[in-house]
Amino acid sequence: MKTDELLEKLHRVDREYYRLEKILALLQWDEETCLPPRGVEERAEQLALLQGIAHERLVSPLVGQCLAELGSTTENPRGDEGLPALQRDFLRVVRRAYDREVKLPVEFVSAAARAEGLSQAAWAQARRTNDFSLFLPHLRTMINFAREKARYWGYSAAAGNNNLYDGLLDIYEPGLSSARISALFIPLGERLSALLKKLSPPPPYPFLEQDYDTRVQEQFNHELMDYLGFDSGRGRLDISAHPFTTSLGTDDVRITTRYFPRNLLSSIFSVIHESGHAFYEMGLPAELRCSCLADGASMAVHESQSRFWENVIGRSRPFWEGLFPVLSRYFPTQLGQVDLDTFYRGLNQVRPSLIRVDADEVSYPLHIILRFELEKQLIAGELAPEDLPGRWREYSRRYLNLESETDSDGVLQDVHWSMGAFGYFPSYALGNLYGLQFRAQMHKDLPGLESALAGGNFKPVHEWLADRIYRWGRRLEPSELLATVTGEQLSTDPFLDYIEAKYTGLCR
Amino acid sequence: MKTDELLEKLHRVDREYYRLEKILALLQWDEETCLPPRGVEERAEQLALLQGIAHERLVSPLVGQCLAELGSTTENPRGDEGLPALQRDFLRVVRRAYDREVKLPVEFVSAAARAEGLSQAAWAQARRTNDFSLFLPHLRTMINFAREKARYWGYSAAAGNNNLYDGLLDIYEPGLSSARISALFIPLGERLSALLKKLSPPPPYPFLEQDYDTRVQEQFNHELMDYLGFDSGRGRLDISAHPFTTSLGTDDVRITTRYFPRNLLSSIFSVIHESGHAFYEMGLPAELRCSCLADGASMAVHESQSRFWENVIGRSRPFWEGLFPVLSRYFPTQLGQVDLDTFYRGLNQVRPSLIRVDADEVSYPLHIILRFELEKQLIAGELAPEDLPGRWREYSRRYLNLESETDSDGVLQDVHWSMGAFGYFPSYALGNLYGLQFRAQMHKDLPGLESALAGGNFKPVHEWLADRIYRWGRRLEPSELLATVTGEQLSTDPFLDYIEAKYTGLCR
Repeated sequence: MKTDELLEKLHRVDREYYRLEKILALLQWDEETCLPPRGVEERAEQLALLQGIAHERLVSPLVGQCLAELGSTTENPRGDEGLPALQRDFLRVVRRAYDREVKLPVEFVSAAARAEGLSQAAWAQARRTNDFSLFLPHLRTMINFAREKARYWGYSAAAGNNNLYDGLLDIYEPGLSSARISALFIPLGERLSALLKKLSPPPPYPFLEQDYDTRVQEQFNHELMDYLGFDSGRGRLDISAHPFTTSLGTDDVRITTRYFPRNLLSSIFSVIHESGHAFYEMGLPAELRCSCLADGASMAVHESQSRFWENVIGRSRPFWEGLFPVLSRYFPTQLGQVDLDTFYRGLNQVRPSLIRVDADEVSYPLHIILRFELEKQLIAGELAPEDLPGRWREYSRRYLNLESETDSDGVLQDVHWSMGAFGYFPSYALGNLYGLQFRAQMHKDLPGLESALAGGNFKPVHEWLADRIYRWGRRLEPSELLATVTGEQLSTDPFLDYIEAKYTGLCR
Repeated sequence: MKTDELLEKLHRVDREYYRLEKILALLQWDEETCLPPRGVEERAEQLALLQGIAHERLVSPLVGQCLAELGSTTENPRGDEGLPALQRDFLRVVRRAYDREVKLPVEFVSAAARAEGLSQAAWAQARRTNDFSLFLPHLRTMINFAREKARYWGYSAAAGNNNLYDGLLDIYEPGLSSARISALFIPLGERLSALLKKLSPPPPYPFLEQDYDTRVQEQFNHELMDYLGFDSGRGRLDISAHPFTTSLGTDDVRITTRYFPRNLLSSIFSVIHESGHAFYEMGLPAELRCSCLADGASMAVHESQSRFWENVIGRSRPFWEGLFPVLSRYFPTQLGQVDLDTFYRGLNQVRPSLIRVDADEVSYPLHIILRFELEKQLIAGELAPEDLPGRWREYSRRYLNLESETDSDGVLQDVHWSMGAFGYFPSYALGNLYGLQFRAQMHKDLPGLESALAGGNFKPVHEWLADRIYRWGRRLEPSELLATVTGEQLSTDPFLDYIEAKYTGLCR
């Protein structure tokens, strides 16, 4: 076959695989937002069937043959040097996916998808009823599937090392081993713990203890999305037990949040966070549409976007100069007498809390380090699933000096393990690091940024992100993207510098 | 292969086909209820891909071979006489689906699904903006696909006959030709028109001209569903441009409605109607689950259920004896001073209106006859799509003595043609006929029915329907089901007797 034909055949399979993955994403989105409780079992069967079909499309002999004929091998995934750069990047990502999937039997893929569907529903019920025992058998199953998957990929379970876990990390953050992550996380944790001790405890903020009608919160969130530049013709906001973003296509990107009457900030910041993910997905360039390149560079880079919007923008003073008057109009009783400075200090108060997604910027990475340590142990077999709640409480005291009264606010708070997503959590803290390195570059490039933010003008930010980050989709490895944008390697310094400057300033 | 193996192989394919169809139903449900406007094109591609995959599963040589080895042929679809009755019914339905699908090229199936996805979205926009021209090119495409489909099935387009249309009718109501339907509809229309002329015009009902908060309507509808016995653990209610029911599995049955501030009855009666469909789907017996038999006997039998609940139950006086006090509590200002008798007469007033789904029981079948006549002409090529709005207005005058000011309230009011569902409309009026024949039997079997209804006790009705109708799923042809339940053939008499008795009593 000619090169053009080979590429066309590969693109065709890739497009179909992309669409099947998006249909799977709709099944999952619907399970989290709409599915009636009794529909869970049949949904799990639908997921199993469709995941199997998607898998079989990708691992067909045709794909292996086209890749080989185009010169793409495991060692040289980008194929023949004479191909255009875009096609070589495409080959790299297809090769990577093919190498992974071809090692998994289709029965394994279907069974894992079925188990995930059931596990997520069991987790939601366990969390709702604060009953870890409902989730325990599913957790065990999810750990087994994760270990087995890593084994299929050639990682081993030799005692005392994290090889199996490294195999899972590689799904979300290609190229980063657990040793490398530990080398970043240990000093990061130490410096943040030291900072926490230095900061004065925050004063009470009575306005945060008020009731906020959840319907009004929802109305405000729609205005907030609009304010941030979220195109409601290409996405939507729904409610789920755990906030998330899913892309069902570049023009159909959906975010979710949840509402608590006594926690105004929770839904606001999850909406800003998820909007950051959504902007990335919606901002992918036309040339990458409907292909494996129409995705973020990695989960950590994706989290760099969400946490950049949530924290660097959303928790900044200029941002609330523009938005606080709007928010006050929605809640005149609760906020009418609060001044901007008090509001700003209230939303940036550093007070370690039990819930990761509601954590302040200083203690947030400690939540991640806690989970990173625990999931390493779970995958290495050093921690039995039934001992997880106890170990969670122990680590919660160690890292956060807090202990949850319930498992719902403790080990059951996050959806990730119920989906078998072991190795995902580090992405959040790594995302903080990437995000602050990107920010340093953005500030150099956009000197008038703060006054634009204060005026509610996010156009410079959207354009900068589109031009420097979104344009690449998944074409570059995360480290290549970082080097391309900033000329640097991954580092904790910009993040720690930012945190220390902001919070020693705020909490004197 | 042994018989058991052959059956197991067929059941496996059928289960997968069933699940793929349910995933397709989710894609369509989502398009109607959730999809962001710009997501329409990618959704159409997803539908095309998945419809093609489902088609290819069903028409695989394995299916043809298993059917043949089990003795199932086009002429003798139920296979070997020694097989258990349930398996023979299963073979009949698989053979019927196989015979149909195997004649369609996969490219045709995918292209039709893609076009439908785009057409429905265009219709929704055309209806919203009252611009038929937006829909016209899609209507043309839908007509062409429908005609081509009937041709693939061996129906011909000989001038002056309805053979192509008969091919489409057969999808929804196996065994009924357009000639047979005309033979029922012509005298039906004549007697209803004569009755309409005889009835005195209704007095004004000022309570129906009030504003009803749509959020409160929604709250009431949830209580109404609960009151009727809708299990919210196995289904849900959403909002769409046109009310519909979809089953994503026996434990995930979804209904929709729409809200108008000045039309309280519209959403109430569409919720009762769609609940009737949902009860049928949710009531299918365990032995038929996840198979082609887990479906209604036909669309007309399905409509017999929805229209039975909507009209025979929902528009009866005993029903509102129990429910009117509840409704009044939701709308004390508008209904507090209205007595039950006035309310009952108001909701049964006979006043031909433009909108089919809001029509009274007497004029409703005339809306169907109008559509039946028009779609026959469209499929026969006797009416050009661009002339449809004019012909619609002409027929609207002829049958209803009314003319719509806008196409949105006229030719664009229904979703069906935009989905290519030509041949579906007769199901509604046929459903009325089936429903009243079933009712006659139910009244013989359940003498205390009216007092049960007045007490909000629907258990006898649910049990009777489950025992006589739901239990069969799709095992029986509609005419067999009717004969089994009532010992009769399809007839207009019970419906006309009911209508004439009820409305000459009410409108003296």
